[in-house]
Amino acid sequence: MTNPMSIRPRMLMGPGPSDVNPRVLDAMARPTIGHLDPQFLQILNDVRETLQAVFKTRNPLTLAVSGTGSAGMEACVVNLIEPGDKMLICVAGVFGARMKDVAERAGAEVTAIEVPWGHVFTPEQVENAIRERGPFKVVGIVHAETSTGAGQPIPDIGRIVHDAGALFLVDTVTSLAGMEVDVDGWRIDACYSGTQKCLSCPPGLSPVTFSAAAERAMSERKTKVRSWYLDMNMVRQYWGSERLYHHTAPINMIYGLHEALRIVLEEGLEARWRRHMRHHLELKSELEGMGIRFLADPDHRLPMLNAVAAPDGVDEAAVRARLLDEFAIEIGAGLGAFKGKAWRIGLMGESATERHVQAVVGALRQILA
Amino acid sequence: MTNPMSIRPRMLMGPGPSDVNPRVLDAMARPTIGHLDPQFLQILNDVRETLQAVFKTRNPLTLAVSGTGSAGMEACVVNLIEPGDKMLICVAGVFGARMKDVAERAGAEVTAIEVPWGHVFTPEQVENAIRERGPFKVVGIVHAETSTGAGQPIPDIGRIVHDAGALFLVDTVTSLAGMEVDVDGWRIDACYSGTQKCLSCPPGLSPVTFSAAAERAMSERKTKVRSWYLDMNMVRQYWGSERLYHHTAPINMIYGLHEALRIVLEEGLEARWRRHMRHHLELKSELEGMGIRFLADPDHRLPMLNAVAAPDGVDEAAVRARLLDEFAIEIGAGLGAFKGKAWRIGLMGESATERHVQAVVGALRQILA
Repeated sequence: MTNPMSIRPRMLMGPGPSDVNPRVLDAMARPTIGHLDPQFLQILNDVRETLQAVFKTRNPLTLAVSGTGSAGMEACVVNLIEPGDKMLICVAGVFGARMKDVAERAGAEVTAIEVPWGHVFTPEQVENAIRERGPFKVVGIVHAETSTGAGQPIPDIGRIVHDAGALFLVDTVTSLAGMEVDVDGWRIDACYSGTQKCLSCPPGLSPVTFSAAAERAMSERKTKVRSWYLDMNMVRQYWGSERLYHHTAPINMIYGLHEALRIVLEEGLEARWRRHMRHHLELKSELEGMGIRFLADPDHRLPMLNAVAAPDGVDEAAVRARLLDEFAIEIGAGLGAFKGKAWRIGLMGESATERHVQAVVGALRQILA
Repeated sequence: MTNPMSIRPRMLMGPGPSDVNPRVLDAMARPTIGHLDPQFLQILNDVRETLQAVFKTRNPLTLAVSGTGSAGMEACVVNLIEPGDKMLICVAGVFGARMKDVAERAGAEVTAIEVPWGHVFTPEQVENAIRERGPFKVVGIVHAETSTGAGQPIPDIGRIVHDAGALFLVDTVTSLAGMEVDVDGWRIDACYSGTQKCLSCPPGLSPVTFSAAAERAMSERKTKVRSWYLDMNMVRQYWGSERLYHHTAPINMIYGLHEALRIVLEEGLEARWRRHMRHHLELKSELEGMGIRFLADPDHRLPMLNAVAAPDGVDEAAVRARLLDEFAIEIGAGLGAFKGKAWRIGLMGESATERHVQAVVGALRQILA
């Protein structure tokens, strides 16, 4: 028999999860009801409607996949890709590379283009890749690359992808609700996110949305989707008016997302984006004042994910351990090319406040003194 | 903006979810911490250890998949199957048929054998299928078929599967913690379950366990697992001592499972199995006294899932609606071949009590009077 859990709370300033509003935790602790209970079906309708508002889309096929952000990535890829389909993937960090791996497993014939970590693609690079190595059925890219702190110019790339007649698949795991995302305005065809970043809900669900063109591509498939669990042809019949049982929805996680989305819309999307930017600029000013250098291209830095170089001669892992042990503050380590060299400081959702900025800056000042 | 949630609690007596102990809901509402926080890694270790006890296994590769029971089914299948591999699937209801669909999508060359709904396979039927149409790499079966209420003779079939040198894949979504499941004793190689049945945790996670032989088959694969999200070669490196980031674990769901497993072991497995059987027999006696007939083979009835024929001339859907509206009791409808003809009354985990039996019997008496 194991001991009861005893959890010392943290201030979550890593790459996600972020701090969760107690209203969301309270919602998750409401009594479980059935996945076909009319009360729960109303909650699903509410979640779809609020997700549409947060994604800025009118797509009917908008829902929460029953898995984390990576399941959302896989859901978008496997529903659009049939074996042999050509897909262009723009890789600028760990999560772009992950998309390539997912697409290859789905049977896609993948062309990848890359930029150095911390940099962004120019629309011309995408245009050239399509001209020289296309046509492609799908072009995929990560909006806010959590491993580098750089944000890609999605609207400009979207125009090129559409002019080329391809479907545009965009990862907004880290960006959604923390900076502008405009699925309809940017003509994104398939978009997925995660709950544990700027939505400030615990991890476990992945909001997704699909355009009419993406739905058409799904209905024209000649082969079954390789994943039964993530097959949108079936999942949609549960979230839609048919209410056909597919798998048992993660009821209490959906309760949490329902409340988290209400909190986002209470604040207002634009106000929320501004708040993230305001605290990012404050953190940037403080850290640069301490001589700490940001890693991403200055013109394309993300507000919610601040990737900075650990100062020379500092044991970055020891600093993170002291932040966690002595200050109960979690920040993230570098991933991939940045492993051992970077810190990733998240200002996401409930963690994007003046209090968080001052706490992490003050703690770092003491530790580095 | 949507309204706040307002949930009228139910007595959950359908095919799952079952009633959740308030201790589990409280655990889920604890503050979210990071997926690499040492506190959380200890919780993962505890969950693995208690899952091993509940599955009755010493398999090191025992963990909770970040999705519902159907994701666990897919995880077991896609990790063992490579395109072209031969798999025998014993289909006795909806969930066996689902396994066939999942396996075909994974590229398996599937042979299915079937028995009528409510019946079970004899070991000889499996033996003949293997002799006539084998050899098979994997033989899959559902222990407790939630759509029919019948339980398959797993130990006897397991011996035959092992003698034939195949891997034995067993669905224990509905059986685990409600009747005997003995992964090591029955020589099961891959086993998955769900949290929302006899474990009485909300839906959202799927406990899985893999034998040494299953691990060997995974390490000898010539192709990548088709699902990135469910690839155990990577997931195991997060749950194992390497602690390599794969995807962000569903933190608060894991809190809930941690507490649910503690409750199971506090009661004791054998006592819990006996409790399920006791209340099943009580329900059976009451319902048969009302002239309501059970659908599954009398020698192989499940204690936790009571599939009964709706009495002639009764609008079964109207009865379920009245149970829900007037009594706040949820029971399940028939699925597949039993659609429109059956009720499925669950006595799972926290819902397997005298109070539940008396409540549903009393309500049915009033409605049918």
